[in-house]
Amino acid sequence: MAKGPVGDWYKDARNTQGLLLDIFGVLYENGDEGPVVIPGSIEAVKKLKDAGIPVRFCTNNSTKTKAGLAKILLDLGFDVSESQLFPPPPAVSHVLKARNLRPYLIVMPDVLPQFADIAQTEPNCVVLGDAQTHFTYDNMNRAFQVLLSCPNPVLIAMGGGKYYQEAGEMKLDVGPFAKALEFASGIEAEIIGKPSKTFFLAALSDMGFSTDKVVMIGDDIISDVGGAQACGIRGVQVRTGKYRPRDEPHASVTPDGYVDNLLQAVDLFLAHR
Amino acid sequence: MAKGPVGDWYKDARNTQGLLLDIFGVLYENGDEGPVVIPGSIEAVKKLKDAGIPVRFCTNNSTKTKAGLAKILLDLGFDVSESQLFPPPPAVSHVLKARNLRPYLIVMPDVLPQFADIAQTEPNCVVLGDAQTHFTYDNMNRAFQVLLSCPNPVLIAMGGGKYYQEAGEMKLDVGPFAKALEFASGIEAEIIGKPSKTFFLAALSDMGFSTDKVVMIGDDIISDVGGAQACGIRGVQVRTGKYRPRDEPHASVTPDGYVDNLLQAVDLFLAHR
Repeated sequence: MAKGPVGDWYKDARNTQGLLLDIFGVLYENGDEGPVVIPGSIEAVKKLKDAGIPVRFCTNNSTKTKAGLAKILLDLGFDVSESQLFPPPPAVSHVLKARNLRPYLIVMPDVLPQFADIAQTEPNCVVLGDAQTHFTYDNMNRAFQVLLSCPNPVLIAMGGGKYYQEAGEMKLDVGPFAKALEFASGIEAEIIGKPSKTFFLAALSDMGFSTDKVVMIGDDIISDVGGAQACGIRGVQVRTGKYRPRDEPHASVTPDGYVDNLLQAVDLFLAHR
Repeated sequence: MAKGPVGDWYKDARNTQGLLLDIFGVLYENGDEGPVVIPGSIEAVKKLKDAGIPVRFCTNNSTKTKAGLAKILLDLGFDVSESQLFPPPPAVSHVLKARNLRPYLIVMPDVLPQFADIAQTEPNCVVLGDAQTHFTYDNMNRAFQVLLSCPNPVLIAMGGGKYYQEAGEMKLDVGPFAKALEFASGIEAEIIGKPSKTFFLAALSDMGFSTDKVVMIGDDIISDVGGAQACGIRGVQVRTGKYRPRDEPHASVTPDGYVDNLLQAVDLFLAHR
């Protein structure tokens, strides 16, 4: 899908203080036999570090704890630290504690340790992650019954994504299952993850930069590019991961740029510093 | 939940030519050990037959063939004929043939014979029934991939219901899963079943009556009562099945009447003929 760069987002690189990067579909993706690095992305992350460019990884990955996600990236050869990662599970855990919510969780087993210190009996809240085969009819019914049973039930979705690519196939993300429960219960889901503004701003707050000084690079035209733009952050679409030629141009989102892959984005960016 | 009748829908009984009745939650419901008759409903159906009142059963049941549904009712003791039943599967089968659609089906195995004579290779259409535990992540993904793979994909849902009661618990109906696929694919589902106008009118056409001459009686405030009213058919809510006191009054639908159960409705109706 190499078509070359589009847009001039990188020409202002000297006034750009940092980058927000998506992980899945930008750094790596899952193949038939596990995670596979997207060519050039290890080098791209290293170039940014060597150049001293602040980077945060703003991801909707809700299948692992933050430590588990860091381990995958380190094992694949990415030079990143856990403190650079902004996935939904720690943010959700924080919200549950702050609001005294007892969740019924539909999540992958690997992420359960993130919620081990939170009471889960007599749930008054439903939390949906990218639960994949754990989105069974029985689990969805149980979640629905929790929402019906409480006076002020809360439905939280770790991201609003529609789908992602895995082993060459498009797979349903958490968003559609959140929509199913919204429709059945009449309760609107709170999204903790992209494209929620709060979620982008948490990463920016950690960097100490304003929205006009960073660029988000991702493969999801809605959650990454559109979500960032809705906060005033420039959004660049990579032609890797779930990107398909039909996304260019897109009916509702016009990215600040298109690049073939992360390395092309980083090379353009660094060449204009 | 006996509260007595509300509304005066039955006072015009002499000008009312026939009745449309929902089945599940009105005639019977499923208990822990199978179907259970709702008290008085066998007698109510018999009284209508004895009085010569034309009746059609307008149901969203998509778990059986029409013959299978008739057998359940006959075995329970209802004096009905297969020709009075209007469930979605035969209507969907008709549409698939007329439009040369090859379905990927997510349905209960008992209903598969209804589609046995329709080609299903290289699907260009997804059909969702009340598939219960067959709404697995893998089946939902396969459906999504079918919708992504075709130039003009069609998504058909056998009804738009949110939930129903079974063995004392609320269970998710087909509607939420249709919404999930709509959100993921951007394709709007065609509903063949209640509350679709076409579906009500097919039953009326069979009776030869106009919309102002019949009354629909059901337990689903949205699909039965609201759906009928949107066609100009009076809609009466029974306080059986999935009915809950919070449905009375309802935020968006005002039934033409409430009754404790079908027998109360029939007695009121016949007393005013």
